[in-house]
Amino acid sequence: MTESVALGPGAEFDAIRSMLDRWGPRAWGIGDDAAVVTPPRGDHLLVSVDASIEGKHWVREWLTPREIGYRAVAAAMSDLAAMAARPVGILVALVLPVSWRPELAGIADGIGEAAELAHATILGGNVSDGGELSITTTVLGHAYEPLARSGALEGDHVYLTGRLGGTGAALRALQAGKAPSADDRVRFAHPVPRIEEARWLADRGASAGIDISDGLGGDLGHLAAASGVAIEIDLDAIPLATNVDLRAALASGEEYEIVVTSREPFDVAEFERRFAIPLTDIGSVRIASGGARVRSRDGGRIVELVRGHDHFMS
Amino acid sequence: MTESVALGPGAEFDAIRSMLDRWGPRAWGIGDDAAVVTPPRGDHLLVSVDASIEGKHWVREWLTPREIGYRAVAAAMSDLAAMAARPVGILVALVLPVSWRPELAGIADGIGEAAELAHATILGGNVSDGGELSITTTVLGHAYEPLARSGALEGDHVYLTGRLGGTGAALRALQAGKAPSADDRVRFAHPVPRIEEARWLADRGASAGIDISDGLGGDLGHLAAASGVAIEIDLDAIPLATNVDLRAALASGEEYEIVVTSREPFDVAEFERRFAIPLTDIGSVRIASGGARVRSRDGGRIVELVRGHDHFMS
Repeated sequence: MTESVALGPGAEFDAIRSMLDRWGPRAWGIGDDAAVVTPPRGDHLLVSVDASIEGKHWVREWLTPREIGYRAVAAAMSDLAAMAARPVGILVALVLPVSWRPELAGIADGIGEAAELAHATILGGNVSDGGELSITTTVLGHAYEPLARSGALEGDHVYLTGRLGGTGAALRALQAGKAPSADDRVRFAHPVPRIEEARWLADRGASAGIDISDGLGGDLGHLAAASGVAIEIDLDAIPLATNVDLRAALASGEEYEIVVTSREPFDVAEFERRFAIPLTDIGSVRIASGGARVRSRDGGRIVELVRGHDHFMS
Repeated sequence: MTESVALGPGAEFDAIRSMLDRWGPRAWGIGDDAAVVTPPRGDHLLVSVDASIEGKHWVREWLTPREIGYRAVAAAMSDLAAMAARPVGILVALVLPVSWRPELAGIADGIGEAAELAHATILGGNVSDGGELSITTTVLGHAYEPLARSGALEGDHVYLTGRLGGTGAALRALQAGKAPSADDRVRFAHPVPRIEEARWLADRGASAGIDISDGLGGDLGHLAAASGVAIEIDLDAIPLATNVDLRAALASGEEYEIVVTSREPFDVAEFERRFAIPLTDIGSVRIASGGARVRSRDGGRIVELVRGHDHFMS
């Protein structure tokens, strides 16, 4: 399915060619001014963009070039997971400083790995010179009925995939110049977007969904606001990574787990057998009084829940 | 058609909100993790990404914030024009250094202006902190039959829109610390993607198309290579901007004019009445001997034609 690619001379085209060589059949249709995408008849097309920037989301010493490429694309894919979409393809806009050019093969391999994991093809991109490495990924997916943030209804259960806090723990260790635990490092360097999990949940009646890339507290707030509801959380139910306390877990961003709401309870045992990660009923949806809000089940710890994740260098 | 936008607190969300305020109904569907796009039934969706970066494509002193925003989106739109697609929407990933934050309103206005000119809505985006301003624009469009680079056939005419060299002349003046002529400055600061023109030409039988953002010489080479043909150009026919010589015009990048090929001649007079820019028959498509190539009609000046545009700071 690989189309032949015919480009003229120049350093920019050399960089593109070297990436295409590494991607092989994972890149498709590159060589025209725009890529053609044809979603299945009747499906909606979903599109989102996310940027991963040196010095903002990570520091050069923390990650391998392959991890940097992988992580950028995996993070962008999480937005498709949040809406229970099936990925189609990606576009990658790379700002590649001269000092990073020797690492292009590794970065490209990581981009290719994340695309392949999501069964997405690489449809196009852009390469520019610049002062800091950045990878801006546009993801395209399709869904017959996208899972929005706005569908949560009173009485719904609130479910969370995975366990929280590992990414934040890795980040704190790295910022302090220490080595994170192996588990925490994997959570930070190699997050797995919950694409199949989200579709499984949507197929079984999920009413609303969001990924918690900004931290559980902040993103529950977004879901509550979009649905015009209150969300009541049992803080003690939230599964935590080893050696992570609740407060740190709630503020931990870039977790790339998802939260969905559902009127009917899910078959948690079947989910966990299938995906080998926890699925946890962490609370319920209530009528909002005094505006959309998130509150803990004991009514007390509201403030720390509605605070979003602050990117570590902003 | 504007959906309500419900976001949590934080500087990133403040920036997004302030842009949404300026865009009004031009922004649509923002607030979920991904935007929903539904092309007309039977049409293909086309998607492309382009980056505009401080210090690489322009210098702060050369352009107003509004021009910077406009130019980034207009340049990306040119890739849809190249394929004769009808724009649907855009995603904008902004890297916004602290020193640029006071200019956000102007940048947003320029983004909105370019979107409106193309009848495109702003479907989503991303805002990050970083060291240099960059605007990465993903454009989405649709076409029943996209105009590819690969469709040129022996005997086709080769047509060029507009006149060349103004952008390059403006760039040379700005780099030398001089004021460009008013006409040249407009070409650099406010390029107009040839969206309607391309659809007019495609509807009348164009066989292949490309935009000449990399300069006429380089992009004719791309078209020739993709179609597996030779392209023979009458260098004396190329319309030039005032006070620009041929060599400079051929190397001038970021012109955002388009080249199309066609078996039947176009009604040039009707085109020019309608769009108020030149449409010029600049050459013809020949069978390639010894590989795809571009040559001038006198057979001599090949080298300068196949050289692409080098971005001024790469």
